[in-house]
Amino acid sequence: MQASRVYSFPVMADWSKRLAGIKGLVLDISGVLYDSGGEGGGVPIPGSIEAVKKIKSSGLKLRFCTNETQATRDKFVEKLQRLGFDIVVDEVTAPAPAACRILKERNLRPHLLVHDDVIPEFADINKADPNCVVIGDAADNFSYKNLNDAFQVLIGLENPVLLSLGKGRYYKETDGLKLDVGVYMKALEYACDIQAEVVGKPAKMFFQSALTEMDIEPHQAIMIGDDIVNDVGGAQRCGMTALQVRTGKYRPCDEQHPEVKADGYVNNLAEAVDVILKQLDK
Amino acid sequence: MQASRVYSFPVMADWSKRLAGIKGLVLDISGVLYDSGGEGGGVPIPGSIEAVKKIKSSGLKLRFCTNETQATRDKFVEKLQRLGFDIVVDEVTAPAPAACRILKERNLRPHLLVHDDVIPEFADINKADPNCVVIGDAADNFSYKNLNDAFQVLIGLENPVLLSLGKGRYYKETDGLKLDVGVYMKALEYACDIQAEVVGKPAKMFFQSALTEMDIEPHQAIMIGDDIVNDVGGAQRCGMTALQVRTGKYRPCDEQHPEVKADGYVNNLAEAVDVILKQLDK
Repeated sequence: MQASRVYSFPVMADWSKRLAGIKGLVLDISGVLYDSGGEGGGVPIPGSIEAVKKIKSSGLKLRFCTNETQATRDKFVEKLQRLGFDIVVDEVTAPAPAACRILKERNLRPHLLVHDDVIPEFADINKADPNCVVIGDAADNFSYKNLNDAFQVLIGLENPVLLSLGKGRYYKETDGLKLDVGVYMKALEYACDIQAEVVGKPAKMFFQSALTEMDIEPHQAIMIGDDIVNDVGGAQRCGMTALQVRTGKYRPCDEQHPEVKADGYVNNLAEAVDVILKQLDK
Repeated sequence: MQASRVYSFPVMADWSKRLAGIKGLVLDISGVLYDSGGEGGGVPIPGSIEAVKKIKSSGLKLRFCTNETQATRDKFVEKLQRLGFDIVVDEVTAPAPAACRILKERNLRPHLLVHDDVIPEFADINKADPNCVVIGDAADNFSYKNLNDAFQVLIGLENPVLLSLGKGRYYKETDGLKLDVGVYMKALEYACDIQAEVVGKPAKMFFQSALTEMDIEPHQAIMIGDDIVNDVGGAQRCGMTALQVRTGKYRPCDEQHPEVKADGYVNNLAEAVDVILKQLDK
């Protein structure tokens, strides 16, 4: 697989074998469509706006699969539309709605440690007398006081339940890399000597729900993401082909990751889409 | 060892076998001498002030071994003196001075993520163009911004070095349990996929330096602490006998800890000292 590190003919050959039955694409958003942060909430990655249009006019099914938990899906999609993307709320699989389903199913009443802007997603969830903690990418809400409050809820429970909306290490904003929810999940796991339950990527169930929405099988889908573990590794464990883009949080050392090897590496989403559509046209 | 969970004759018999050659005691401070927090900076644990006096008049050597990094040793000892304890700076082994020795030996220039009040300990350390991160119990300084700044230093280094002043999970203040430095150490370890180097308990070298100060061997010393892993486990790995007090952060489940079994459990420091002195008098 040495050759796959360089975008060249052998890579394309590898892909083409897998592209025959492809019916849909699953796209990560942050680091693939755009880099978040800054005044407008982020900047599109060159070529990505057009790439999404091309997918939609190709006849391929399309689903966006994000661990974004700094905003409600509505607000998040509005931002992406403002940036120029052709995207609607119903095309997006996100952790907060998935967590709400779990909370209701298991009669869990959460103490929330999340971003202010995602709180409305939990509007109809009973939060009195909490018997679990839900953490998301709370960013500046990850103060010592707030983490301590969540810790005190957990350490006071006989059977502590921690639901984590993702387990990412960091993400890229326009002004640099930022710590993601996984870091604080690990902090609470260590503090309480417990294991969190991850809702969102790389959980298999999360990818599966995206595929169900598209009504296709794992082997009929390609995941494209910038996170070698949570996008690529998670999708592969679900049975999908997965490509890593060299945008967003991508770092060259990802291509020598000890546990995860992408099915292909591409410079950006635009390149991935061009390769895929060209092969499918044959 | 079932019987050792209750303070009763079999426990005393166990200890007495070990007490024959004992020449010195090593005491943890927070949770053993006093509970920190609140207006006066904490409250003495009943009987502890007298227990320290008894040790000093017994002829046993005495050393205080703390992971306290919310203040300089000077300020910390001043507070304990105000609370009524017979203690001087030279009797205290603490992580910050130990870290300074390591920084100098290895030409490391730290980015500090520590409590404001411990910064003076690092006054004569070169902190320009950092090539490592030192974290201590920074408490409210553990903001998202500050943890992110430390992360960005580490992720930008070719060989990231993280020195952690302890690895405790939590400690007890007068108003409840509080997250300790180990939680944030784990957070940065996960974020950067690295292993921190722990300065302070439970590092063997840290206990050894306390013994060296007393000029005694491990088998001649008893450690008394409230932390089953960092006090008891660390001291035992260094070859010392170790007792856990049922004060401070002690929780009943500590007595069924999967990895660490104290040589004895006592209700508090006063009780431990009474048992020890009584046995030594025989």
